[in-house]
Amino acid sequence: MNLSVIKIGGNIINNPAALHEALDYFASLVEPAILVHGGGRKASQVITEMGREPVMIDGRRITDEATLEIVTMVYAGLLNKNVVAQLQHRGTNAIGLSGADANAILAEKRPVKDIDYGFAGDVKAVNAPLLDGLLRLGLRPVMCPITHNHKGQLLNTNADTIANETATAMAAHGYEVSLQYCFEFPGVMRDIKDSDSAIPSLTPGSYADFKADGTIVGGMIPKLDNAFAAVGAGVKEVVIGDLAALRAGKGTRCTRA
Amino acid sequence: MNLSVIKIGGNIINNPAALHEALDYFASLVEPAILVHGGGRKASQVITEMGREPVMIDGRRITDEATLEIVTMVYAGLLNKNVVAQLQHRGTNAIGLSGADANAILAEKRPVKDIDYGFAGDVKAVNAPLLDGLLRLGLRPVMCPITHNHKGQLLNTNADTIANETATAMAAHGYEVSLQYCFEFPGVMRDIKDSDSAIPSLTPGSYADFKADGTIVGGMIPKLDNAFAAVGAGVKEVVIGDLAALRAGKGTRCTRA
Repeated sequence: MNLSVIKIGGNIINNPAALHEALDYFASLVEPAILVHGGGRKASQVITEMGREPVMIDGRRITDEATLEIVTMVYAGLLNKNVVAQLQHRGTNAIGLSGADANAILAEKRPVKDIDYGFAGDVKAVNAPLLDGLLRLGLRPVMCPITHNHKGQLLNTNADTIANETATAMAAHGYEVSLQYCFEFPGVMRDIKDSDSAIPSLTPGSYADFKADGTIVGGMIPKLDNAFAAVGAGVKEVVIGDLAALRAGKGTRCTRA
Repeated sequence: MNLSVIKIGGNIINNPAALHEALDYFASLVEPAILVHGGGRKASQVITEMGREPVMIDGRRITDEATLEIVTMVYAGLLNKNVVAQLQHRGTNAIGLSGADANAILAEKRPVKDIDYGFAGDVKAVNAPLLDGLLRLGLRPVMCPITHNHKGQLLNTNADTIANETATAMAAHGYEVSLQYCFEFPGVMRDIKDSDSAIPSLTPGSYADFKADGTIVGGMIPKLDNAFAAVGAGVKEVVIGDLAALRAGKGTRCTRA
Protein backbone atom coordinates (compact mmCIF):
# COMPACT_ATOMS: atom_id res chain seq x y z
CA MET A 1 0.00 0.00 0.00
CA ASN A 2 1.20 3.52 -0.73
CA LEU A 3 1.89 5.95 2.12
CA SER A 4 2.95 9.59 2.05
CA VAL A 5 4.86 10.96 5.04
CA ILE A 6 4.83 14.75 4.85
CA LYS A 7 7.13 16.83 7.03
CA ILE A 8 6.34 20.52 7.51
CA GLY A 9 8.83 22.71 9.33
CA GLY A 10 8.76 25.81 11.48
CA ASN A 11 8.63 28.15 8.45
CA ILE A 12 5.19 26.73 7.63
CA ILE A 13 3.77 26.14 11.10
CA ASN A 14 4.63 29.72 12.11
CA ASN A 15 2.91 31.25 9.07
CA PRO A 16 -0.91 30.90 9.08
CA ALA A 17 -1.27 31.37 5.29
CA ALA A 18 1.46 28.82 4.51
CA LEU A 19 0.02 26.42 7.10
CA HIS A 20 -3.44 26.59 5.53
CA GLU A 21 -1.96 25.82 2.10
CA ALA A 22 0.08 22.94 3.51
CA LEU A 23 -2.98 21.48 5.23
CA ASP A 24 -4.99 21.87 2.00
CA TYR A 25 -2.26 19.85 0.27
CA PHE A 26 -2.23 17.18 2.99
CA ALA A 27 -6.04 16.98 2.94
CA SER A 28 -5.98 16.62 -0.87
CA LEU A 29 -3.90 13.43 -0.76
CA VAL A 30 -6.05 10.44 -1.69
CA GLU A 31 -3.96 7.62 -0.27
CA PRO A 32 -2.91 7.01 3.37
CA ALA A 33 -0.75 9.79 4.78
CA ILE A 34 1.04 10.86 7.94
CA LEU A 35 1.91 14.46 8.79
CA VAL A 36 4.95 15.35 10.90
CA HIS A 37 5.33 18.90 12.17
CA GLY A 38 8.03 20.84 13.95
CA GLY A 39 7.42 24.17 15.59
CA GLY A 40 10.48 25.97 16.89
CA ARG A 41 9.60 29.65 16.82
CA LYS A 42 6.33 29.55 18.79
CA ALA A 43 8.07 27.65 21.61
CA SER A 44 10.78 30.32 21.80
CA GLN A 45 8.05 32.98 21.90
CA VAL A 46 6.25 31.29 24.82
CA ILE A 47 9.57 30.73 26.62
CA THR A 48 10.24 34.47 26.32
CA GLU A 49 6.67 35.41 27.38
CA MET A 50 7.17 33.28 30.50
CA GLY A 51 10.26 35.31 31.33
CA ARG A 52 12.84 32.70 30.30
CA GLU A 53 15.69 32.71 27.78
CA PRO A 54 15.70 30.14 24.92
CA VAL A 55 19.09 28.38 24.87
CA MET A 56 20.40 27.11 21.52
CA ILE A 57 23.81 25.64 20.67
CA ASP A 58 24.58 25.25 16.94
CA GLY A 59 20.90 25.69 16.12
CA ARG A 60 19.85 22.95 18.51
CA ARG A 61 17.71 23.69 21.51
CA ILE A 62 19.02 22.81 24.97
CA THR A 63 16.02 21.33 26.74
CA ASP A 64 16.08 21.92 30.49
CA GLU A 65 13.07 20.90 32.59
CA ALA A 66 11.22 24.21 32.20
CA THR A 67 11.88 24.20 28.43
CA LEU A 68 10.58 20.62 28.16
CA GLU A 69 7.32 21.73 29.85
CA ILE A 70 6.96 24.54 27.36
CA VAL A 71 7.78 22.56 24.20
CA THR A 72 5.36 19.85 25.38
CA MET A 73 2.68 22.52 25.77
CA VAL A 74 3.40 24.17 22.43
CA TYR A 75 4.19 21.18 20.17
CA ALA A 76 1.85 18.50 21.61
CA GLY A 77 -0.85 20.94 22.75
CA LEU A 78 -1.21 24.20 20.89
CA LEU A 79 0.28 23.37 17.47
CA ASN A 80 -0.72 19.71 17.23
CA LYS A 81 -4.35 20.26 18.27
CA ASN A 82 -4.79 23.29 16.03
CA VAL A 83 -3.40 21.36 13.06
CA VAL A 84 -5.72 18.45 13.86
CA ALA A 85 -8.76 20.73 14.23
CA GLN A 86 -7.93 22.46 10.93
CA LEU A 87 -7.62 19.08 9.18
CA GLN A 88 -10.90 17.88 10.69
CA HIS A 89 -12.49 21.02 9.23
CA ARG A 90 -11.15 19.88 5.83
CA GLY A 91 -12.81 16.48 6.26
CA THR A 92 -9.51 14.73 7.01
CA ASN A 93 -9.83 12.39 9.98
CA ALA A 94 -6.59 13.45 11.68
CA ILE A 95 -5.40 12.14 15.03
CA GLY A 96 -2.62 13.95 16.86
CA LEU A 97 0.16 11.92 18.42
CA SER A 98 3.16 12.52 20.57
CA GLY A 99 5.60 9.65 20.82
CA ALA A 100 4.13 8.74 24.21
CA ASP A 101 0.64 8.23 22.75
CA ALA A 102 0.16 4.53 22.15
CA ASN A 103 3.95 4.30 22.43
CA ALA A 104 4.14 5.72 18.89
CA ILE A 105 7.81 6.71 19.16
CA LEU A 106 10.21 5.38 21.73
CA ALA A 107 13.35 7.44 22.31
CA GLU A 108 16.23 7.65 24.73
CA LYS A 109 17.68 10.72 26.36
CA ARG A 110 20.68 11.84 24.32
CA PRO A 111 23.89 10.78 26.09
CA VAL A 112 25.99 13.69 27.34
CA LYS A 113 29.23 14.02 25.37
CA ASP A 114 30.63 17.51 24.66
CA ILE A 115 27.22 19.13 25.09
CA ASP A 116 24.42 18.27 27.51
CA TYR A 117 21.27 18.72 25.41
CA GLY A 118 19.08 18.03 28.46
CA PHE A 119 15.77 16.31 27.73
CA ALA A 120 16.54 15.73 24.05
CA GLY A 121 15.45 12.36 22.68
CA ASP A 122 17.13 10.18 20.07
CA VAL A 123 14.62 7.90 18.34
CA LYS A 124 14.96 4.21 19.15
CA ALA A 125 11.80 2.74 17.59
CA VAL A 126 8.73 3.85 15.65
CA ASN A 127 5.63 1.78 16.38
CA ALA A 128 4.74 0.83 12.80
CA PRO A 129 2.02 -1.70 13.78
CA LEU A 130 0.24 1.05 15.73
CA LEU A 131 0.45 3.56 12.86
CA ASP A 132 -0.72 0.81 10.49
CA GLY A 133 -3.67 0.09 12.83
CA LEU A 134 -4.65 3.77 12.92
CA LEU A 135 -4.36 4.09 9.13
CA ARG A 136 -6.59 1.01 8.77
CA LEU A 137 -9.19 2.74 10.96
CA GLY A 138 -9.16 5.49 8.30
CA LEU A 139 -7.21 7.90 10.49
CA ARG A 140 -4.31 10.17 9.52
CA PRO A 141 -1.68 10.49 12.25
CA VAL A 142 -0.33 14.00 12.89
CA MET A 143 2.95 13.65 14.77
CA CYS A 144 4.60 16.30 16.91
CA PRO A 145 8.28 16.21 17.92
CA ILE A 146 7.75 15.04 21.51
CA THR A 147 8.70 11.45 22.32
CA HIS A 148 9.07 9.38 25.51
CA ASN A 149 11.45 6.81 26.95
CA HIS A 150 8.79 4.37 28.28
CA LYS A 151 9.95 5.26 31.81
CA GLY A 152 7.61 8.22 32.17
CA GLN A 153 9.98 10.82 30.71
CA LEU A 154 8.93 12.99 27.78
CA LEU A 155 11.72 14.05 25.40
CA ASN A 156 12.14 16.83 22.84
CA THR A 157 13.03 15.30 19.47
CA ASN A 158 14.06 16.61 16.05
CA ALA A 159 11.05 16.56 13.71
CA ASP A 160 13.14 15.68 10.61
CA THR A 161 14.39 12.62 12.46
CA ILE A 162 10.84 11.64 13.39
CA ALA A 163 9.77 11.92 9.75
CA ASN A 164 12.77 9.92 8.54
CA GLU A 165 12.42 7.16 11.14
CA THR A 166 8.66 6.95 10.61
CA ALA A 167 9.07 6.61 6.85
CA THR A 168 11.74 3.94 7.31
CA ALA A 169 9.69 1.95 9.84
CA MET A 170 6.59 2.04 7.65
CA ALA A 171 8.63 0.88 4.63
CA ALA A 172 9.91 -2.04 6.70
CA HIS A 173 6.27 -2.75 7.63
CA GLY A 174 5.40 -3.19 3.94
CA TYR A 175 4.30 0.26 2.78
CA GLU A 176 5.56 1.94 -0.41
CA VAL A 177 6.61 5.17 1.26
CA SER A 178 7.05 8.60 -0.31
CA LEU A 179 8.71 10.88 2.26
CA GLN A 180 8.24 14.55 1.44
CA TYR A 181 10.15 17.33 3.15
CA CYS A 182 8.42 20.65 2.73
CA PHE A 183 11.04 23.38 3.19
CA GLU A 184 11.68 26.91 1.91
CA PHE A 185 13.25 26.18 -1.52
CA PRO A 186 11.77 24.56 -4.66
CA GLY A 187 14.25 21.72 -4.23
CA VAL A 188 17.95 21.06 -3.80
CA MET A 189 19.33 24.05 -5.72
CA ARG A 190 22.31 24.12 -8.10
CA ASP A 191 22.41 27.87 -7.52
CA ILE A 192 20.59 29.24 -4.47
CA LYS A 193 20.01 32.58 -6.30
CA ASP A 194 18.35 30.91 -9.30
CA SER A 195 14.89 29.63 -8.42
CA ASP A 196 14.84 27.57 -11.65
CA SER A 197 17.93 25.61 -10.65
CA ALA A 198 16.30 22.87 -8.56
CA ILE A 199 17.87 19.48 -9.26
CA PRO A 200 14.94 17.28 -10.40
CA SER A 201 16.34 13.97 -9.19
CA LEU A 202 19.24 12.51 -7.27
CA THR A 203 20.60 9.01 -6.84
CA PRO A 204 23.44 8.01 -4.49
CA GLY A 205 25.78 8.27 -7.49
CA SER A 206 24.73 11.71 -8.74
CA TYR A 207 24.56 12.95 -5.13
CA ALA A 208 28.22 11.90 -4.66
CA ASP A 209 29.15 13.74 -7.89
CA PHE A 210 27.34 16.94 -6.80
CA LYS A 211 29.12 16.81 -3.45
CA ALA A 212 32.49 16.21 -5.12
CA ASP A 213 32.13 19.16 -7.50
CA GLY A 214 30.92 21.50 -4.73
CA THR A 215 27.36 21.99 -6.07
CA ILE A 216 25.78 20.57 -2.91
CA VAL A 217 27.25 21.98 0.28
CA GLY A 218 26.51 22.96 3.89
CA GLY A 219 23.17 22.22 5.54
CA MET A 220 21.88 20.24 2.56
CA ILE A 221 24.44 17.51 3.21
CA PRO A 222 23.06 16.15 6.52
CA LYS A 223 19.51 16.48 5.07
CA LEU A 224 20.45 14.46 1.98
CA ASP A 225 22.54 11.98 3.98
CA ASN A 226 19.39 11.29 6.01
CA ALA A 227 17.30 11.11 2.84
CA PHE A 228 19.61 8.53 1.26
CA ALA A 229 19.78 6.58 4.52
CA ALA A 230 15.96 6.33 4.35
CA VAL A 231 16.08 5.37 0.67
CA GLY A 232 18.77 2.80 1.44
CA ALA A 233 16.55 1.37 4.18
CA GLY A 234 13.61 0.83 1.83
CA VAL A 235 11.79 4.17 1.50
CA LYS A 236 10.70 4.43 -2.16
CA GLU A 237 11.57 8.11 -2.57
CA VAL A 238 12.39 11.21 -0.59
CA VAL A 239 11.14 14.43 -2.19
CA ILE A 240 12.48 17.78 -1.03
CA GLY A 241 10.86 21.05 -2.09
CA ASP A 242 8.60 23.92 -1.19
CA LEU A 243 4.85 23.52 -1.06
CA ALA A 244 4.31 24.70 -4.66
CA ALA A 245 6.86 22.15 -5.87
CA LEU A 246 5.42 19.26 -3.82
CA ARG A 247 1.88 20.06 -4.97
CA ALA A 248 3.03 20.07 -8.59
CA GLY A 249 4.81 16.71 -8.13
CA LYS A 250 8.14 18.52 -8.53
CA GLY A 251 10.98 19.16 -6.05
CA THR A 252 14.14 17.07 -5.87
CA ARG A 253 13.35 13.35 -5.96
CA CYS A 254 15.91 11.13 -4.21
CA THR A 255 15.74 7.47 -5.17
CA ARG A 256 17.91 4.37 -5.06
CA ALA A 257 18.65 4.41 -8.79
CA MET B 1 -18.21 -5.85 27.22
CA ASN B 2 -17.39 -4.01 30.44
CA LEU B 3 -15.87 -0.54 30.34
CA SER B 4 -14.72 1.74 33.14
CA VAL B 5 -14.70 5.49 32.54
CA ILE B 6 -12.63 7.13 35.28
CA LYS B 7 -12.74 10.88 35.80
CA ILE B 8 -9.95 12.54 37.82
CA GLY B 9 -10.27 16.18 38.73
CA GLY B 10 -7.95 19.09 39.39
CA ASN B 11 -7.33 18.05 43.02
CA ILE B 12 -5.58 14.91 41.71
CA ILE B 13 -3.91 16.24 38.59
CA ASN B 14 -2.34 19.12 40.59
CA ASN B 15 -0.91 16.78 43.25
CA PRO B 16 1.93 14.51 42.02
CA ALA B 17 1.51 11.92 44.82
CA ALA B 18 -2.27 11.69 44.30
CA LEU B 19 -1.79 11.55 40.53
CA HIS B 20 0.66 8.64 40.81
CA GLU B 21 -1.83 6.73 42.98
CA ALA B 22 -4.69 7.46 40.59
CA LEU B 23 -2.62 6.26 37.63
CA ASP B 24 -1.64 3.12 39.57
CA TYR B 25 -5.37 2.49 40.06
CA PHE B 26 -6.18 3.12 36.38
CA ALA B 27 -3.29 0.86 35.31
CA SER B 28 -4.50 -1.89 37.66
CA LEU B 29 -7.89 -2.17 35.93
CA VAL B 30 -8.07 -5.39 33.97
CA GLU B 31 -10.93 -4.61 31.59
CA PRO B 32 -11.16 -1.82 28.98
CA ALA B 33 -10.97 1.65 30.49
CA ILE B 34 -10.99 5.32 29.52
CA LEU B 35 -9.47 8.09 31.65
CA VAL B 36 -10.85 11.65 31.59
CA HIS B 37 -8.87 14.40 33.26
CA GLY B 38 -9.47 18.04 34.09
CA GLY B 39 -6.71 20.40 35.08
CA GLY B 40 -7.80 23.84 36.28
CA ARG B 41 -5.07 25.03 38.60
CA LYS B 42 -2.05 24.53 36.33
CA ALA B 43 -3.76 26.53 33.57
CA SER B 44 -4.37 29.42 35.97
CA GLN B 45 -0.71 29.24 37.01
CA VAL B 46 0.52 29.44 33.41
CA ILE B 47 -1.94 32.25 32.66
CA THR B 48 -0.48 34.18 35.61
CA GLU B 49 3.14 33.38 34.60
CA MET B 50 2.35 34.78 31.15
CA GLY B 51 1.23 38.01 32.77
CA ARG B 52 -2.51 37.50 32.35
CA GLU B 53 -5.42 37.34 34.80
CA PRO B 54 -7.57 34.18 34.99
CA VAL B 55 -11.23 35.18 34.70
CA MET B 56 -13.81 32.98 36.44
CA ILE B 57 -17.55 33.57 36.90
CA ASP B 58 -19.31 31.24 39.38
CA GLY B 59 -16.34 28.87 39.28
CA ARG B 60 -16.44 28.65 35.49
CA ARG B 61 -13.57 29.89 33.40
CA ILE B 62 -14.23 32.57 30.79
CA THR B 63 -12.22 31.43 27.79
CA ASP B 64 -10.99 34.33 25.66
CA GLU B 65 -8.62 33.63 22.75
CA ALA B 66 -5.43 33.90 24.80
CA THR B 67 -6.92 31.67 27.52
CA LEU B 68 -7.94 29.09 24.92
CA GLU B 69 -4.32 28.97 23.70
CA ILE B 70 -3.12 28.38 27.23
CA VAL B 71 -5.67 25.73 28.23
CA THR B 72 -4.96 23.93 24.95
CA MET B 73 -1.25 23.97 25.81
CA VAL B 74 -1.77 22.86 29.41
CA TYR B 75 -4.63 20.34 29.10
CA ALA B 76 -3.89 18.76 25.69
CA GLY B 77 -0.11 19.20 25.88
CA LEU B 78 1.51 19.27 29.30
CA LEU B 79 -1.01 17.35 31.43
CA ASN B 80 -2.30 14.91 28.84
CA LYS B 81 1.13 13.87 27.57
CA ASN B 82 2.60 13.53 31.05
CA VAL B 83 -0.34 11.35 32.12
CA VAL B 84 0.08 9.24 28.97
CA ALA B 85 3.86 8.89 29.50
CA GLN B 86 3.30 7.90 33.15
CA LEU B 87 0.74 5.29 32.10
CA GLN B 88 3.07 3.94 29.40
CA HIS B 89 5.69 3.54 32.15
CA ARG B 90 3.11 1.41 34.02
CA GLY B 91 2.64 -0.83 30.98
CA THR B 92 -0.74 0.69 30.10
CA ASN B 93 -1.01 1.44 26.40
CA ALA B 94 -2.55 4.90 26.80
CA ILE B 95 -3.37 7.23 23.92
CA GLY B 96 -4.09 10.88 24.64
CA LEU B 97 -7.01 12.53 22.90
CA SER B 98 -8.51 15.94 22.62
CA GLY B 99 -11.97 16.10 21.11
CA ALA B 100 -10.42 17.18 17.81
CA ASP B 101 -8.31 14.01 17.54
CA ALA B 102 -10.13 11.58 15.29
CA ASN B 103 -13.20 13.76 15.92
CA ALA B 104 -13.49 12.12 19.35
CA ILE B 105 -15.77 14.80 20.79
CA LEU B 106 -17.75 17.26 18.75
CA ALA B 107 -18.94 20.36 20.58
CA GLU B 108 -20.47 23.72 19.82
CA LYS B 109 -19.52 27.11 21.18
CA ARG B 110 -21.79 27.88 24.12
CA PRO B 111 -24.44 30.38 23.00
CA VAL B 112 -24.19 33.77 24.71
CA LYS B 113 -27.09 34.38 27.12
CA ASP B 114 -26.43 36.31 30.36
CA ILE B 115 -22.73 35.46 30.30
CA ASP B 116 -20.35 35.16 27.35
CA TYR B 117 -18.16 32.18 28.27
CA GLY B 118 -16.03 32.76 25.18
CA PHE B 119 -14.55 29.60 23.60
CA ALA B 120 -16.43 27.23 25.91
CA GLY B 121 -17.78 24.11 24.24
CA ASP B 122 -20.99 22.21 24.95
CA VAL B 123 -20.71 18.57 23.92
CA LYS B 124 -22.82 17.55 20.93
CA ALA B 125 -21.52 14.04 20.17
CA VAL B 126 -18.99 11.54 21.45
CA ASN B 127 -17.50 9.35 18.74
CA ALA B 128 -18.22 5.95 20.30
CA PRO B 129 -17.21 3.92 17.19
CA LEU B 130 -13.78 5.58 17.29
CA LEU B 131 -13.29 4.91 21.01
CA ASP B 132 -14.49 1.35 20.44
CA GLY B 133 -11.96 0.97 17.60
CA LEU B 134 -9.11 2.24 19.80
CA LEU B 135 -10.15 -0.06 22.68
CA ARG B 136 -10.19 -2.99 20.24
CA LEU B 137 -6.60 -2.10 19.28
CA GLY B 138 -5.78 -2.62 22.99
CA LEU B 139 -5.44 1.12 23.64
CA ARG B 140 -6.73 3.13 26.60
CA PRO B 141 -7.93 6.60 25.65
CA VAL B 142 -6.91 9.45 27.96
CA MET B 143 -9.20 12.38 27.28
CA CYS B 144 -8.51 16.01 28.07
CA PRO B 145 -11.19 18.69 28.27
CA ILE B 146 -10.51 20.32 24.89
CA THR B 147 -13.03 19.70 22.11
CA HIS B 148 -13.66 21.11 18.62
CA ASN B 149 -16.60 22.20 16.50
CA HIS B 150 -15.51 20.50 13.23
CA LYS B 151 -15.01 23.97 11.75
CA GLY B 152 -11.42 24.31 12.93
CA GLN B 153 -12.23 25.86 16.29
CA LEU B 154 -10.95 24.29 19.52
CA LEU B 155 -13.19 24.72 22.58
CA ASN B 156 -12.65 24.49 26.34
CA THR B 157 -15.08 21.95 27.82
CA ASN B 158 -16.04 20.79 31.31
CA ALA B 159 -14.29 17.50 32.10
CA ASP B 160 -17.22 16.10 34.13
CA THR B 161 -19.43 16.63 31.10
CA ILE B 162 -16.92 14.84 28.87
CA ALA B 163 -16.85 11.87 31.27
CA ASN B 164 -20.65 11.75 31.48
CA GLU B 165 -21.23 12.04 27.74
CA THR B 166 -18.50 9.50 26.98
CA ALA B 167 -19.98 6.98 29.41
CA THR B 168 -23.46 7.52 27.96
CA ALA B 169 -22.29 7.18 24.35
CA MET B 170 -20.33 4.01 25.10
CA ALA B 171 -23.36 2.51 26.88
CA ALA B 172 -25.48 3.26 23.80
CA HIS B 173 -22.75 1.55 21.74
CA GLY B 174 -23.25 -1.68 23.73
CA TYR B 175 -20.76 -1.45 26.59
CA GLU B 176 -21.66 -2.14 30.25
CA VAL B 177 -20.26 1.11 31.61
CA SER B 178 -19.10 1.91 35.12
CA LEU B 179 -18.52 5.66 35.37
CA GLN B 180 -16.32 6.58 38.34
CA TYR B 181 -15.86 10.13 39.56
CA CYS B 182 -12.74 10.44 41.68
CA PHE B 183 -13.18 13.51 43.93
CA GLU B 184 -12.06 14.66 47.39
CA PHE B 185 -14.59 12.80 49.62
CA PRO B 186 -15.13 9.06 50.25
CA GLY B 187 -18.55 9.37 48.64
CA VAL B 188 -21.72 11.42 48.85
CA MET B 189 -21.66 12.29 52.58
CA ARG B 190 -24.61 12.33 54.98
CA ASP B 191 -22.44 14.55 57.21
CA ILE B 192 -19.46 16.31 55.63
CA LYS B 193 -17.64 16.29 59.01
CA ASP B 194 -18.01 12.52 59.48
CA SER B 195 -15.74 10.58 57.11
CA ASP B 196 -17.67 7.37 57.86
CA SER B 197 -20.94 8.84 56.65
CA ALA B 198 -20.65 8.09 52.92
CA ILE B 199 -23.95 6.88 51.46
CA PRO B 200 -23.14 3.43 49.97
CA SER B 201 -25.76 3.47 47.24
CA LEU B 202 -28.36 5.70 45.66
CA THR B 203 -31.28 5.11 43.33
CA PRO B 204 -33.47 7.81 41.78
CA GLY B 205 -35.96 7.16 44.60
CA SER B 206 -33.54 7.37 47.54
CA TYR B 207 -31.79 10.35 45.90
CA ALA B 208 -35.16 12.18 45.80
CA ASP B 209 -35.69 11.35 49.50
CA PHE B 210 -32.21 12.61 50.50
CA LYS B 211 -32.83 15.84 48.58
CA ALA B 212 -36.27 16.25 50.19
CA ASP B 213 -34.95 15.82 53.74
CA GLY B 214 -31.99 18.18 53.14
CA THR B 215 -29.24 15.52 53.46
CA ILE B 216 -27.98 16.14 49.92
CA VAL B 217 -27.53 19.81 49.11
CA GLY B 218 -25.48 22.33 47.14
CA GLY B 219 -22.82 21.27 44.64
CA MET B 220 -23.66 17.58 44.97
CA ILE B 221 -27.04 18.15 43.33
CA PRO B 222 -25.84 19.01 39.78
CA LYS B 223 -23.22 16.21 40.09
CA LEU B 224 -25.88 13.66 41.03
CA ASP B 225 -28.40 15.00 38.52
CA ASN B 226 -25.76 14.32 35.84
CA ALA B 227 -25.03 10.90 37.35
CA PHE B 228 -28.69 9.89 37.24
CA ALA B 229 -29.07 11.30 33.74
CA ALA B 230 -26.23 8.94 32.70
CA VAL B 231 -27.80 6.03 34.57
CA GLY B 232 -31.16 6.83 33.00
CA ALA B 233 -29.48 6.81 29.57
CA GLY B 234 -28.07 3.31 30.04
CA VAL B 235 -24.85 3.66 32.07
CA LYS B 236 -24.79 0.67 34.46
CA GLU B 237 -23.54 2.62 37.50
CA VAL B 238 -21.97 5.90 38.48
CA VAL B 239 -19.60 5.63 41.46
CA ILE B 240 -18.52 8.76 43.33
CA GLY B 241 -15.69 8.68 45.85
CA ASP B 242 -12.08 9.41 46.64
CA LEU B 243 -9.29 7.24 45.32
CA ALA B 244 -9.14 4.99 48.42
CA ALA B 245 -12.89 4.37 48.16
CA LEU B 246 -12.82 3.62 44.43
CA ARG B 247 -9.87 1.26 44.83
CA ALA B 248 -11.72 -0.59 47.60
CA GLY B 249 -14.86 -0.87 45.44
CA LYS B 250 -16.60 1.55 47.80
CA GLY B 251 -17.85 5.12 47.29
CA THR B 252 -21.45 6.02 46.52
CA ARG B 253 -22.91 3.76 43.82
CA CYS B 254 -25.72 5.31 41.79
CA THR B 255 -27.85 2.82 39.88
CA ARG B 256 -31.25 2.66 38.24
CA ALA B 257 -32.78 0.52 41.04
